[in-house]
Amino acid sequence: MKAIDMDTWLPSLITKTPQDGYELAVKLSRVAVKLTQPDAAVRDKLRPEYAGDSDALIAVSQVVATNFATVAAANNYWR
Amino acid sequence: MKAIDMDTWLPSLITKTPQDGYELAVKLSRVAVKLTQPDAAVRDKLRPEYAGDSDALIAVSQVVATNFATVAAANNYWR
Amino acid sequence: MKAIDMDTWLPSLITKTPQDGYELAVKLSRVAVKLTQPDAAVRDKLRPEYAGDSDALIAVSQVVATNFATVAAANNYWR
Amino acid sequence: MKAIDMDTWLPSLITKTPQDGYELAVKLSRVAVKLTQPDAAVRDKLRPEYAGDSDALIAVSQVVATNFATVAAANNYWR
Amino acid sequence: MKAIDMDTWLPSLITKTPQDGYELAVKLSRVAVKLTQPDAAVRDKLRPEYAGDSDALIAVSQVVATNFATVAAANNYWR
Amino acid sequence: MKAIDMDTWLPSLITKTPQDGYELAVKLSRVAVKLTQPDAAVRDKLRPEYAGDSDALIAVSQVVATNFATVAAANNYWR
Repeated sequence: MKAIDMDTWLPSLITKTPQDGYELAVKLSRVAVKLTQPDAAVRDKLRPEYAGDSDALIAVSQVVATNFATVAAANNYWR
Repeated sequence: MKAIDMDTWLPSLITKTPQDGYELAVKLSRVAVKLTQPDAAVRDKLRPEYAGDSDALIAVSQVVATNFATVAAANNYWR
Repeated sequence: MKAIDMDTWLPSLITKTPQDGYELAVKLSRVAVKLTQPDAAVRDKLRPEYAGDSDALIAVSQVVATNFATVAAANNYWR
Repeated sequence: MKAIDMDTWLPSLITKTPQDGYELAVKLSRVAVKLTQPDAAVRDKLRPEYAGDSDALIAVSQVVATNFATVAAANNYWR
Repeated sequence: MKAIDMDTWLPSLITKTPQDGYELAVKLSRVAVKLTQPDAAVRDKLRPEYAGDSDALIAVSQVVATNFATVAAANNYWR
Repeated sequence: MKAIDMDTWLPSLITKTPQDGYELAVKLSRVAVKLTQPDAAVRDKLRPEYAGDSDALIAVSQVVATNFATVAAANNYWR
């Protein structure tokens, strides 16, 4: 997972491809966590916990789905 | 996290950039908590608990995603 | 929290400002609880429990976010 | 809570007022439960449990909010 | 609950009535479970568990609500 | 479950049929898990756990429902 530059991390919702849009949705999902828990050391400690817990993985997938809906609409579904 | 002036905390859903819109979504997510638990001392005590709990962090990210969908639509996705 | 007159508690989804719309979203979120648990004494007993529980506060914020999306769309985002 | 006639319980999503629409959203939320647990005796036994549990009440409110979004859109927000 | 023919189980999102649309939403909710747990014997064993658990019933109702939103939009709300 | 080629796994949201669209929604739901837990061995170990847990199965169905809403909108509901 790449680190996110927090100065200008969201210049646009427009992406070239659906797959780029999905990656943006993943990024949008992670930033909320970062803003709520700004301490990188704490986040690094939590990561293996939820990455090994199926309930948490499904919940992450739910957040990504919600953000992907927004990004897809922004891009008029790349039609 | 900046304190939120509760007199007129939501003059508009329109923001200049997507990133400002995301910050507004975070604010919208926090206000519901503030209205349900108005006691700042209780909220301050709860903060470290959920900021160190991955399930809670993912749930926060879900709320922000839902509010960001609204703000993004309001801004016609900053197209 | 003001008591909600249940005779005609929802005359319209249209509000003057975004902030009024957010307050309507909070109201919409509370009415479902009231209809499911009509006994005010039970609700009053539950309140301090969830108001002191971060998971519950985040869940409340999720409901408000969902209702706010509806109210905001109804008001064409107060553009 | 009134019993729901399951023969033709959903003739239309159109309602006269927003408040009627909200009541329809509550009904939509209950039917899924009824279809999954058709035994009225079991449902009656479960009712006091969740009606006295704040997490369950908030979850019910979330379902109603989701259904209300649909009913409100169907009615063009009663504008 | 009727068995779902998995060869062509979703020919269209268009239904004659809102009630048919709701039933399609229930079907959509069940197929995801079926694809994740293809073993009918395991699903049959799980069924009484969640059908007797109010949290699970409310969660099922949430999934149906989300799918019903899609089916209703597809049918232009049967207006 | 077929393995997902992660190089270009999402060329388009457009599908021929609603059923293909549903399968794409399932795929979208799985990729978020894959990106959060890239180790296939860990995912394989988690699979039987959640496939035998009704709460997890319902949560998976919720994610698929959210993604299906996006895919269906992208395809103008295959009208």
